Amino acid sequence: MTRETSKKVAVIGATGYGGLQILKLLKEHPNYDIAFLGGERSSGKRWNDICPFLTLDQNPTVQKPEVNLIAANSDYAILCLPNGLASRLVPELVSRDVRVVDLSADYRYRSLEQWKDVYVRISDQNPRDDSDLCSEAIYGLPEWNFSKIQSAQLVAAPGCFPTASLLPLLPFLKQGLIETDGIVIDAKTGTSGGGRVPQEHLLFSEASETISPYAVIGHRHTSEIEQLASEVAGHDLQIQFTPNLVPMVRGILSTVYARLRDPGLTAEDCTTVLDAFYRDHETVDVLSVGTYPSTKWVRNTNKSLLSVQVDTRTGRIVLMSVIDNLLKGQAGQAIQCLNIMNNLPQTLGLPLLGFYP
Amino acid sequence: MTRETSKKVAVIGATGYGGLQILKLLKEHPNYDIAFLGGERSSGKRWNDICPFLTLDQNPTVQKPEVNLIAANSDYAILCLPNGLASRLVPELVSRDVRVVDLSADYRYRSLEQWKDVYVRISDQNPRDDSDLCSEAIYGLPEWNFSKIQSAQLVAAPGCFPTASLLPLLPFLKQGLIETDGIVIDAKTGTSGGGRVPQEHLLFSEASETISPYAVIGHRHTSEIEQLASEVAGHDLQIQFTPNLVPMVRGILSTVYARLRDPGLTAEDCTTVLDAFYRDHETVDVLSVGTYPSTKWVRNTNKSLLSVQVDTRTGRIVLMSVIDNLLKGQAGQAIQCLNIMNNLPQTLGLPLLGFYP
Amino acid sequence: MTRETSKKVAVIGATGYGGLQILKLLKEHPNYDIAFLGGERSSGKRWNDICPFLTLDQNPTVQKPEVNLIAANSDYAILCLPNGLASRLVPELVSRDVRVVDLSADYRYRSLEQWKDVYVRISDQNPRDDSDLCSEAIYGLPEWNFSKIQSAQLVAAPGCFPTASLLPLLPFLKQGLIETDGIVIDAKTGTSGGGRVPQEHLLFSEASETISPYAVIGHRHTSEIEQLASEVAGHDLQIQFTPNLVPMVRGILSTVYARLRDPGLTAEDCTTVLDAFYRDHETVDVLSVGTYPSTKWVRNTNKSLLSVQVDTRTGRIVLMSVIDNLLKGQAGQAIQCLNIMNNLPQTLGLPLLGFYP
Amino acid sequence: MTRETSKKVAVIGATGYGGLQILKLLKEHPNYDIAFLGGERSSGKRWNDICPFLTLDQNPTVQKPEVNLIAANSDYAILCLPNGLASRLVPELVSRDVRVVDLSADYRYRSLEQWKDVYVRISDQNPRDDSDLCSEAIYGLPEWNFSKIQSAQLVAAPGCFPTASLLPLLPFLKQGLIETDGIVIDAKTGTSGGGRVPQEHLLFSEASETISPYAVIGHRHTSEIEQLASEVAGHDLQIQFTPNLVPMVRGILSTVYARLRDPGLTAEDCTTVLDAFYRDHETVDVLSVGTYPSTKWVRNTNKSLLSVQVDTRTGRIVLMSVIDNLLKGQAGQAIQCLNIMNNLPQTLGLPLLGFYP
Repeated sequence: MTRETSKKVAVIGATGYGGLQILKLLKEHPNYDIAFLGGERSSGKRWNDICPFLTLDQNPTVQKPEVNLIAANSDYAILCLPNGLASRLVPELVSRDVRVVDLSADYRYRSLEQWKDVYVRISDQNPRDDSDLCSEAIYGLPEWNFSKIQSAQLVAAPGCFPTASLLPLLPFLKQGLIETDGIVIDAKTGTSGGGRVPQEHLLFSEASETISPYAVIGHRHTSEIEQLASEVAGHDLQIQFTPNLVPMVRGILSTVYARLRDPGLTAEDCTTVLDAFYRDHETVDVLSVGTYPSTKWVRNTNKSLLSVQVDTRTGRIVLMSVIDNLLKGQAGQAIQCLNIMNNLPQTLGLPLLGFYP
Repeated sequence: MTRETSKKVAVIGATGYGGLQILKLLKEHPNYDIAFLGGERSSGKRWNDICPFLTLDQNPTVQKPEVNLIAANSDYAILCLPNGLASRLVPELVSRDVRVVDLSADYRYRSLEQWKDVYVRISDQNPRDDSDLCSEAIYGLPEWNFSKIQSAQLVAAPGCFPTASLLPLLPFLKQGLIETDGIVIDAKTGTSGGGRVPQEHLLFSEASETISPYAVIGHRHTSEIEQLASEVAGHDLQIQFTPNLVPMVRGILSTVYARLRDPGLTAEDCTTVLDAFYRDHETVDVLSVGTYPSTKWVRNTNKSLLSVQVDTRTGRIVLMSVIDNLLKGQAGQAIQCLNIMNNLPQTLGLPLLGFYP
Repeated sequence: MTRETSKKVAVIGATGYGGLQILKLLKEHPNYDIAFLGGERSSGKRWNDICPFLTLDQNPTVQKPEVNLIAANSDYAILCLPNGLASRLVPELVSRDVRVVDLSADYRYRSLEQWKDVYVRISDQNPRDDSDLCSEAIYGLPEWNFSKIQSAQLVAAPGCFPTASLLPLLPFLKQGLIETDGIVIDAKTGTSGGGRVPQEHLLFSEASETISPYAVIGHRHTSEIEQLASEVAGHDLQIQFTPNLVPMVRGILSTVYARLRDPGLTAEDCTTVLDAFYRDHETVDVLSVGTYPSTKWVRNTNKSLLSVQVDTRTGRIVLMSVIDNLLKGQAGQAIQCLNIMNNLPQTLGLPLLGFYP
Repeated sequence: MTRETSKKVAVIGATGYGGLQILKLLKEHPNYDIAFLGGERSSGKRWNDICPFLTLDQNPTVQKPEVNLIAANSDYAILCLPNGLASRLVPELVSRDVRVVDLSADYRYRSLEQWKDVYVRISDQNPRDDSDLCSEAIYGLPEWNFSKIQSAQLVAAPGCFPTASLLPLLPFLKQGLIETDGIVIDAKTGTSGGGRVPQEHLLFSEASETISPYAVIGHRHTSEIEQLASEVAGHDLQIQFTPNLVPMVRGILSTVYARLRDPGLTAEDCTTVLDAFYRDHETVDVLSVGTYPSTKWVRNTNKSLLSVQVDTRTGRIVLMSVIDNLLKGQAGQAIQCLNIMNNLPQTLGLPLLGFYP
């Protein structure tokens, strides 16, 4: 393990849930210093007044996220901004050699055109023409893109649903073990995925004691899942994806249904397939057959737990995957990428075990 | 509306969640009297001491569920017992002309053999040979079995998952609009479906702030769904069914995925199909396209809300259905059946609108 | 019971939680018609589009709350508006003989000056000089103000905390059984008390899995409690009042601590005191000694449950009271008042028993 | 910081919530090895089969908690057993020079007689005569008993309510700033305080969406609070203590009401008093006046957050204190004591900052 002197990291957009995770992880990380704290609405305020439950040493002042200031103070920038806003900062940051990890969707597609199709309204409000950056950006799923992340100038941290869904699915696509037609993903997320900006449907009074599907056709993460799934499968494929809002704060359960090519495969066989892929990854554990994961088991960790079941009656495989949507599904994975960019152990400073219950 | 004098109803097993719903509904119902309160463990106790939050007039004493006593006092019996125990009482009750609504699974299968296969362990503990009653019992899904319920001596109230899943699915099977191969049902239930007997995984500390799948292959409701679905489709079919435990007390969301036979059908077309089937049923409402149901919208009601979406990219239909698992999914539906058996308006005494939020 | 023909009722501000309760209650009430649906932001919209889970017959259009329109269509008006806004409508409504039940705090104080002191900011934004109306308005706590409510032109529905706190406290003040100095009230409320307008601290992600005190000194309901408590005690008294936000949607538990004047009084004696006061009130039940109330027991009802305990070591009495903050604590009590104003049975159309759990 | 070689620690009773916290803390602690895993019901099983979400290296087998085995393998023992059972093991462990931290109430009272009075039923089931051990045991509240803990052979980890209540209260008793008569404590706890053994009232279906008081007079923690409070105050005092069960898993909020001796003291003055006492304690933070603590702010940490408010109208002080009941209120505090016994930094291996929300 190469311990270097601390790296200076700028955090832009710290008051949202993604930003709060980043700050907590950086504060306790042995290799990074929070060198710049940027925000629009809270600029000029002292951090500890905004956030009495996550105080920072020296109580820094939040500053406007101006590129000059960021570049002068930081080697790295982690952007925790709403979709569209990152693309206003990233080109200039990159041009000044700041290495960027972006939590938004702005650089998750290789093609800017596709991004514009998927994020139409946001694209209208945030005109951009950085096609080259889109194609150069690395999709930050470390278990599948490790070496590219190492040398990346710009990493797009994956969406929470894609992370949860791709980890169990990709090995079977890679091995050609499942039909690529007819894949169904039914995903369940906690409310923190909806962010910290107050919205009626995210109120406790509304979201408690209920479950509801949303964006049933055309959720934006569908295309993000399809992009990497198609690449790994070797041809274009389409997925049926439905998210559901669950009355819990943190966590995603993604359930993937597909048809096995070889109906003779057992759940044990399929578990072995996953084991083989993730044996060397501390961030992914595969449960034994018949043990099904609970999001609580990974809450406050950067881990994914996978489980496979096979229905020999129907010839179908059921893949289950749980993550903490704000850590492995967002900020934790971003720090995992940052560690890789710095040749540090991937999981340095990242929790792999939470308190239960 | 034929108002008759009140009917005498025995309730056996009143302290569980099903029983509590039954008592509340009967207490406020204009046509029924609670004539007998039966229970094993609480026999000899006064009801209002057991249950200070649902007091009954005259504060009845809970009695041992002896058939003679029940038959002497009651025209009807509603059994709210664990699986297996109902079959110990039903044959004798029926033979004494007590009309029975059973909330357990004991008479949901036309074939006793199938019940024995599905409920192996319970079958071992409760030996029975009432094949004839199994085949005579009526599956109490009123929207599909109305006239048979009217004259039934024995009604088996459907399971909660089957109710939620069959209501949206059956019209499409009946019309032959979907492929019967490859149907996937991903269902989500509140904790009250697990009953009131203390179990570790149902503790607040365990079940809160998490979602987890269970019984991923071979949940017992799978075969119950398949039984009626096959009958309506006109041939045997198999379903992929996965239940998930959600941190809420009441409610089921069932999401059904299937492939359309005619890829040209739109979500509006499919909504019309449902509308046509359920237009005259107060207990089922169909939402307009793009409005997705929340279990909270039907909590504390005997209503099912349905919604359909179609993905023209994949040629798939997504059916969503929500119910209150303890009412439309259990006790409310039982009273709905009782009303039908008495030629009363189906929804008399049943709430169709709850308080929000 | 005098059943008259239906009365026409205007509801102003229907999309908030108070308004939703009112609509559900009126829709199912045998004696009232919703004659006018008023709202600023949603004016011009059809109700059923706004609210697919609480549809109204004839799908009325929401209208601007203009006094002429309201008065032309309605005998009664129920105002479900934020504090300050009601006082803009009430004087004119009253002058046109519309009888008004107001859910806000605008007419809860006999003295306009005190209201201005307590609601400073709101007073600044809503200048008013209707002192006379303030002193004429009746505080709508039916168990204590029944006859005045009967003939009232304007009823101010009590706040949720005052309702929960005064019901157990007043009998002891009336009887002079407790010291009036040193009364402590520690109250716990669900999130729906904070309303439906999105605010960060009311998000599920923030309010779930936590409890926190707020407005520890100077919560506005303190003075409202003190007003009636002083009146009943016969002299001015001051109360220590602390509210806490609890991760539940509905419900208030108010715990009142006081010192007994006569240390020889037992919990049974004190229970008898409460029993004597509320024996004839269907809306208040007194639990036997040692049975403590749970807010779930009264959820979705217009009932208050009270319990008393006495600590002979310390000479103190502990009074516990639970209500549903949106029903007995707000909209249900408003309908109770409306019933009284119409010489109808107080609890007509009001639920006194909910579904459990 | 003195880093010694790892100490061998036995954990007895690991499957309850206290035990699970201990295992997670020990597993990640730099100075301790889990040398023995003891349990009655799970003895003979491999740990990782019991607990797939908290796996241990080498997958140890749970063993019967026999003193010889424990003493042969361990320098320290942490007992996470139900009340009464610890006293069966402790005398022998101590006699073999195993230093013990006990999470139960068995050694929290200096007087065995008092313990027998408070824990009558448990005392009947677990006869004991280790008065000497009771009087020698150290009450493990490190902020008040640091030096005694250092050299203790037997530490009784304080109860969760006493920890939360004593931390804000003791400084004011010590300084003589409040009346010792008339102190009221209204405490609110999450469900995990009730343990992992299934009980009806702790089911999600029962405990969700409700708050209820329990053990209103005579909760066993009352006397535990009074013991240390009296000692610090210098004379016997009695406290009015009411616990409430809140629908959250972890966390306690304790609200303490008392009368100030000097009515001229301000909230700022009182905050200064707390600051002065806890300035050097990393485990206790004092919030600025007007900032009230939320249990979420300390969830999954070993920290207590305190806040003070003063009501000049009533001359009363309101003290608010939040902790995580399973960490600072139980297992975390036990490890804090263990660190002190080993001359390690108090908070080594203990989280002081959690993830939010």
